Amino acid sequence: MRYGVAVFPSKKVQDVANSYRKRYDPHYALIPPHITMKEAFEAEEEEIENKIIPELSEIAKNTQPFSYGVYKVSSFSPVTNTIYLKIEPSDEIFELNDKLHAGELPEEKDFAFVPHITIAQKLSDEEFSDVYGSLRMLKFDLNDKVDRFQLLYQLENGAWSVYETFRLGKG
Amino acid sequence: MRYGVAVFPSKKVQDVANSYRKRYDPHYALIPPHITMKEAFEAEEEEIENKIIPELSEIAKNTQPFSYGVYKVSSFSPVTNTIYLKIEPSDEIFELNDKLHAGELPEEKDFAFVPHITIAQKLSDEEFSDVYGSLRMLKFDLNDKVDRFQLLYQLENGAWSVYETFRLGKG
Repeated sequence: MRYGVAVFPSKKVQDVANSYRKRYDPHYALIPPHITMKEAFEAEEEEIENKIIPELSEIAKNTQPFSYGVYKVSSFSPVTNTIYLKIEPSDEIFELNDKLHAGELPEEKDFAFVPHITIAQKLSDEEFSDVYGSLRMLKFDLNDKVDRFQLLYQLENGAWSVYETFRLGKG
Repeated sequence: MRYGVAVFPSKKVQDVANSYRKRYDPHYALIPPHITMKEAFEAEEEEIENKIIPELSEIAKNTQPFSYGVYKVSSFSPVTNTIYLKIEPSDEIFELNDKLHAGELPEEKDFAFVPHITIAQKLSDEEFSDVYGSLRMLKFDLNDKVDRFQLLYQLENGAWSVYETFRLGKG
């Protein structure tokens, strides 16, 4: 089965992200707005129960909740036409990402971690120019807290279902 | 904010449900296939943290995981045109439902609890006759386990985001 780890922002931030995703993100219906902390990986259920969940629980227990800000829109162009709400980088979020790619956990980090909430993807080049041209002018003043992360699995239709919640400072 | 409590079946059962929901359920994109254990209720975040979550955690701790079967399709007609995968009734699921409507938890049980996974809703009378006429002939032999339930909140677009996971026998 395919699993992944994500942080879901507060309702306030999810509602802002969805107001753009609705129009520009074909994954709008597959998962609520999220910060991907660990890209999709394949694992057996037994491995998840006996190895991955205990490790995630341990990481959560040893990580304190932290805050982050969202102030602007950015893009992965020219690598991809993805547009996202930029998570203001902090040591805490990079440290959490590092922990989620160490020890027993599957290592599939192809790129440097850029914390973000996707709001548009799979746009044609023309659409991208139009949409990014206007979205890049936006300014936000959103402050939010990461106090948990979630392990999800993917259904046949591509949608993601939450399997387990890990509270920072608790596990 | 609006909260609810649901059980998400295993991937196997969710995939079966989605194969019908895709065509017949306008909520397909708002939430994965689920068994509603507690209908949507309004609560403040503080109340959720200080009262509801501790109570849900206590209930989970004092409830052992249990199995259920799905063998057929049924419907709430003539009350509504909802069609669902029938969860074979068991003492355990009724007891869990009772606990989720007792003590400090908001009591909004308007109807007798009928454990089910919705696969079609908001059909016109004509569509309902057609669709139910064929779906009611289906036979399944699905066995699944309830070993957790989840607290969700609803976003402005109507979609549901998982806030917390409670493992039966653990809390």
